[in-house]
Amino acid sequence: MPEILVGEYLFLRLKEIGIETLFGVPGDFELALLELVEPQGLLTWLGTPNELVGAYAADGYARQKGAGALVTTFGPGELSALCGIGGSYCENVPVVHIVGYPTNAAQKSGKILHHTLGDGNYDHYVKISSELSCATTVLTDPSTAVVEIDRVLTAMLYHQRPAYIGISEDVAYSKVSTEYLDTKLTRTLPPSAAESEAKILAKIMAALSSAKAPILMVDGGAAINTWAEHVDPLVEALRIPFFVTLLGKGVANEQSSYYGGCFSGAGSCPMSVIKAVSQADCILWLGNYPSDFNTGMFSEHIEQATIIDLQQFSAKIGSIEYKAKINYLLPRIIEAAKDIPQLPQLHVDSIPAPDTSSLPEKIEQDWLWDRMTSFLRPGDLVVTETGTSQVGFTATRLPSGCHSYTQAVYGSIGYATGSAVGAAIAAKETGRFKRMVLITGEGSLQLTIQAFRFWSDMTLCRLCLWSTTKVERYFCGMNSKHNDVPMWDYGALFKAFAPEVTDARTFQVTTAKELDLVDMMLEYQDTPTVMKAVFEEKRTALAKSAAAAKSTVS
Amino acid sequence: MPEILVGEYLFLRLKEIGIETLFGVPGDFELALLELVEPQGLLTWLGTPNELVGAYAADGYARQKGAGALVTTFGPGELSALCGIGGSYCENVPVVHIVGYPTNAAQKSGKILHHTLGDGNYDHYVKISSELSCATTVLTDPSTAVVEIDRVLTAMLYHQRPAYIGISEDVAYSKVSTEYLDTKLTRTLPPSAAESEAKILAKIMAALSSAKAPILMVDGGAAINTWAEHVDPLVEALRIPFFVTLLGKGVANEQSSYYGGCFSGAGSCPMSVIKAVSQADCILWLGNYPSDFNTGMFSEHIEQATIIDLQQFSAKIGSIEYKAKINYLLPRIIEAAKDIPQLPQLHVDSIPAPDTSSLPEKIEQDWLWDRMTSFLRPGDLVVTETGTSQVGFTATRLPSGCHSYTQAVYGSIGYATGSAVGAAIAAKETGRFKRMVLITGEGSLQLTIQAFRFWSDMTLCRLCLWSTTKVERYFCGMNSKHNDVPMWDYGALFKAFAPEVTDARTFQVTTAKELDLVDMMLEYQDTPTVMKAVFEEKRTALAKSAAAAKSTVS
Repeated sequence: MPEILVGEYLFLRLKEIGIETLFGVPGDFELALLELVEPQGLLTWLGTPNELVGAYAADGYARQKGAGALVTTFGPGELSALCGIGGSYCENVPVVHIVGYPTNAAQKSGKILHHTLGDGNYDHYVKISSELSCATTVLTDPSTAVVEIDRVLTAMLYHQRPAYIGISEDVAYSKVSTEYLDTKLTRTLPPSAAESEAKILAKIMAALSSAKAPILMVDGGAAINTWAEHVDPLVEALRIPFFVTLLGKGVANEQSSYYGGCFSGAGSCPMSVIKAVSQADCILWLGNYPSDFNTGMFSEHIEQATIIDLQQFSAKIGSIEYKAKINYLLPRIIEAAKDIPQLPQLHVDSIPAPDTSSLPEKIEQDWLWDRMTSFLRPGDLVVTETGTSQVGFTATRLPSGCHSYTQAVYGSIGYATGSAVGAAIAAKETGRFKRMVLITGEGSLQLTIQAFRFWSDMTLCRLCLWSTTKVERYFCGMNSKHNDVPMWDYGALFKAFAPEVTDARTFQVTTAKELDLVDMMLEYQDTPTVMKAVFEEKRTALAKSAAAAKSTVS
Repeated sequence: MPEILVGEYLFLRLKEIGIETLFGVPGDFELALLELVEPQGLLTWLGTPNELVGAYAADGYARQKGAGALVTTFGPGELSALCGIGGSYCENVPVVHIVGYPTNAAQKSGKILHHTLGDGNYDHYVKISSELSCATTVLTDPSTAVVEIDRVLTAMLYHQRPAYIGISEDVAYSKVSTEYLDTKLTRTLPPSAAESEAKILAKIMAALSSAKAPILMVDGGAAINTWAEHVDPLVEALRIPFFVTLLGKGVANEQSSYYGGCFSGAGSCPMSVIKAVSQADCILWLGNYPSDFNTGMFSEHIEQATIIDLQQFSAKIGSIEYKAKINYLLPRIIEAAKDIPQLPQLHVDSIPAPDTSSLPEKIEQDWLWDRMTSFLRPGDLVVTETGTSQVGFTATRLPSGCHSYTQAVYGSIGYATGSAVGAAIAAKETGRFKRMVLITGEGSLQLTIQAFRFWSDMTLCRLCLWSTTKVERYFCGMNSKHNDVPMWDYGALFKAFAPEVTDARTFQVTTAKELDLVDMMLEYQDTPTVMKAVFEEKRTALAKSAAAAKSTVS
């Protein structure tokens, strides 16, 4: 059998599961591994300005492609990425964190290498990551290295959670037979037992068929890679009203006549959704994820309905939980739904069309999110930042052919900006989306502003920045100084991070009319050349004084 | 007894140990705590653009003031800071990481709050931090909260390592008697037993007195807060040649006639140091920290000398280790040294004076670090980035009245930029230093570029940026693409991060003559108004082509 290096084997496995780009920051203990990337020619390296941006990018990439990979160096490198890995863990995003380790000899020597904690102990960091991973390994034995790689990657795909692989130069450059590659990795869950699946299916269909007002709820589980493809077919087969949650929004076609809006308890949008959902007597719920943000701060009150909660490994009907593999069950529900008579239709108020009759002078939140619906176009991939952006965006009805996502449970500010980098790369690779739209606010943007560096690499990408971050103020301290966000010159930053791009354009917009003008300009000039825009609305307080002086589209 | 809130108690304790500024990023679970800061009027809040910059700033601050504090929010906030905390742990910097927790009720409910991992488990994050802290606590019981606070802060000061305090809004707002404050925290180690200390002292003095070529080595331990003040008095009392290591450099007065240079094995500077140290037969070593970076990649070869290694909790003389508290032992060594006859003097080649006879056309490393000696002035506080900057700087002989430090063991790139923020604040508070000088390279700067935001707040602060990051290339991949650092427009970034500062000045310098010109300009205009400069030397490869076109001081 021919032989390859363990490092090459790892990259072959990544390619096998759909990964084509590696994100990360080069650091000494991973450099030897990275040296293998280019000659092998399978993967592309995309260095990010820091590890946190890299982790967010790998997450955004994985949400599009089914898996992502981040490469960092032992110690400072990996620790800098942990916040991103935590988010992937929380929100079921399979990212493999590959960490370049000191050699086996160095580890065994107990010597104080740089990047260690100075105590000769090389286990601290993997222990830390084990809290945020479904599987970890530090490869020390070349003879078991590839089996370990397969175990960890399989766990990642099975649990849809991050995994951790520590790999040193000596292991990466050990030789291994290619025969292991003959066994392919399992990319999806194994099927449930047919008999048990049939029973559960029958119970689900019975519950739906006997209901007087059944509805479908597209929640967190629907956003998981292996499920998302089933959502629109399910809507079409069931022909009942469906709603999305904050976390589930963006997966389903919101132009469907069955779309009822976003359910988030007291924060539902439109508000009529609350009444509609309260009247449902059976809810087929795709991946209920009852976090505070996702439930309008636990203001959902659903008591009378039978809930059929489909999760990755289970189906709960009312109070009884069954073991089930949802990616197999969903297609069967779709098939079964096609054969049943039309279910009773709960009356749901139709979503009001955006009011385009008049332009407000100031850009107000209520107008803005309605306006987004016409700003967006088929082929847009939208990521909204946690907080104001993600909540406001529930009022935006996605055009067909758009997809959006947001980090609605973990809620790390700065995530969206980094994640957009990875999602845009993935969109290029899949060809599914043409334009990347980032919606964020100043307070969040400042954490990962380095990611601006990448707008120069992304033709067809466009950045929207709504500088309206206010969510912390609503929590506590409406006028407190520590909630002030310093003003930066975002237009200048945008250009300074990519001085080689001479045709980047940025806009600062304070009135609705200016926003319309800019949108028109983009519409007519959106050729496949580099095209970017920063929309900026200064925070209301500052804008008041500045508006008069700056009411031009520059 | 009057009562105060637990949150106020915490801040009183911080103030007691010398902390006047809190660094961090506001996040929902810590907002209530932060609301107490301003009314109490003891501490100042300094919000940083992200948590990593905050952690580095708290570290830089603690290195100047004896302790630092970082406040972040549960989950994403605290995880984003971990790389910085790891560095503080490794390099003995006491930083208390205060984490805003969900309320006790929320934690007990097992509900899925945002920022959790979605599993109802609230222990993951403190487990993670326990790997990087000498003590941790999550305050859940108001009746023991202040005792816990005292325990953890005392441990931090005792071990000179980071500590972790989780505090929720309900605990922070619980009332507690002020009587606990009557017992002051212990800021230094308790004394050793007098008899045992006397014995060890006698052995040390006997070893020194019987040596034919004794020397002093100022290493990592000397940089620890509680020791640093003893270093110059020790040099003066001993009157024998002394050397510094990478980690110990910056503490001692290098204009002393006893200063011999930087010992770093094969990387010593000047190279004559190797010979001198190899001839020593007794080395009084302040806090030996034999890491790879600190020993010229383990190229120190000291065999024939008796080493007296003074550590925080021990003194090792030859092969015998004694328990000792070094902060008490050091003053006694100083006293004893005054009473003994002049010790034999090892011949040490004097450090060559910088060659100022000619100006090279291009800025070369060899010229640059010599030139730094005359650029620096009394009252400068210098932080050098890990890698090229910290190694190059060993050739710079500090003027009297300067202090410098670097992260020589942990070696996290991006550290220096963030750390300088905290060190500059501390310098303002202590009045010990007038000017902050940051020496870093592009590759490192990009990780924490947000810290540029603070140069506008710091009068008398000056930023030096030497864009010569090369160290990764020397490790592996001299010409590899993944080691390329994208070119950013640093001058523009500098201004865009602080658009409110209209008199900021930045310089891009490619020749030695230009650098001299800029230094002269700064010399004559360095009034207490806002004064900043960015020096940029493009990486050698790029500079070659650009030098001709850009050879002006703009």
